[in-house]
Amino acid sequence: MRIITISREFGSGGRELGKRLAELLGYDYYDREIITAIAKKHDMSENFVENALENHWWQTVPLTYHHSFAMISPMQEIQTTLLVEEKNVIEGIAKAGKDCIIVGRNADVRLKDYEPFRIFVCAEMDAKIKRCIERANDGEDTSEKAIKKNIKSIDKNRARNTELITGKKWGAPESYDLIVNTTKWNIKELTPVVAEYANKFFERSR
Amino acid sequence: MRIITISREFGSGGRELGKRLAELLGYDYYDREIITAIAKKHDMSENFVENALENHWWQTVPLTYHHSFAMISPMQEIQTTLLVEEKNVIEGIAKAGKDCIIVGRNADVRLKDYEPFRIFVCAEMDAKIKRCIERANDGEDTSEKAIKKNIKSIDKNRARNTELITGKKWGAPESYDLIVNTTKWNIKELTPVVAEYANKFFERSR
Repeated sequence: MRIITISREFGSGGRELGKRLAELLGYDYYDREIITAIAKKHDMSENFVENALENHWWQTVPLTYHHSFAMISPMQEIQTTLLVEEKNVIEGIAKAGKDCIIVGRNADVRLKDYEPFRIFVCAEMDAKIKRCIERANDGEDTSEKAIKKNIKSIDKNRARNTELITGKKWGAPESYDLIVNTTKWNIKELTPVVAEYANKFFERSR
Repeated sequence: MRIITISREFGSGGRELGKRLAELLGYDYYDREIITAIAKKHDMSENFVENALENHWWQTVPLTYHHSFAMISPMQEIQTTLLVEEKNVIEGIAKAGKDCIIVGRNADVRLKDYEPFRIFVCAEMDAKIKRCIERANDGEDTSEKAIKKNIKSIDKNRARNTELITGKKWGAPESYDLIVNTTKWNIKELTPVVAEYANKFFERSR
């Protein structure tokens, strides 16, 4: 079984790369699907699950309090449950034994025993802003300033979550097998190049 | 003309990757050759040139003093000369117009107008220690502690030099086109994979 995990900066085209890789290689693709599965099981809205998983309010609680359940709020209890659930869903995907690509959710660290090919996708800020503007929804503030602020805030949150959950530094070179900068590429053209690298990674002799 | 630049963590196998890429692709290879050229021109020893370029004592001088030449020591003057010379040699290589690979020396930033393919090579600390022990010279302290200290010190110096000379953060994902983690590879097997990625980079449509 081959697992490719994709971590990515917001606006870098990482999700598009993941989708295209899955299509080209014939792998299963997991992204939003993980949230959907958890939401269904716990009869919660997807938005609630997503927010609860991505905003770790409990991080403000001093570490020494963690042993005293009396100090944990109901919301923190739900978050803990959802984090365990997320871990289970991701491990379930791996246990199913089919080649797959998982975007985000620290799947690279959670599935490290399966030796996934761990990709981090980045781009220069200007390229990320351009991509976000192209994909903005109606009514969204598409001023460069607003977009840039949004990118920084989302990535800061991702970095914090990764460090809290995995103890690893988000975006640090040695945490991934390959870091791809999409700035000078269109993603469609980049996909077979990365796919080839991934194939060779799985076929290597050691 | 195609230029590949390689920045690398000490012990990551970046130099070996560079040499093998040059061999495989039939490119000229520059590394130590740049120091040799400068040393010859100024009738200095290679060791002196290398030390002068890699230990920027002037960094301790407050920035505001830089405009006052009276404050600059003879050694600082020599270093400034050598830095300019290094820049000239690297630009000269590019101007010669032949496909080449340049290892280190901030060639990626200095030759940015030539749109080089900028690789950063990294590895996990354990893999770097192992590689350094394998390649140690007779009499070298090969305790894990000593090797690790050496790796950290050399990389700290590289990071500082890059930031001083280019204003860019050494090893930051968006500063390179590709970051390759060699931990799980042998370099010989990795070489054609990276070569293929580089070729596709140069052939891309935008």
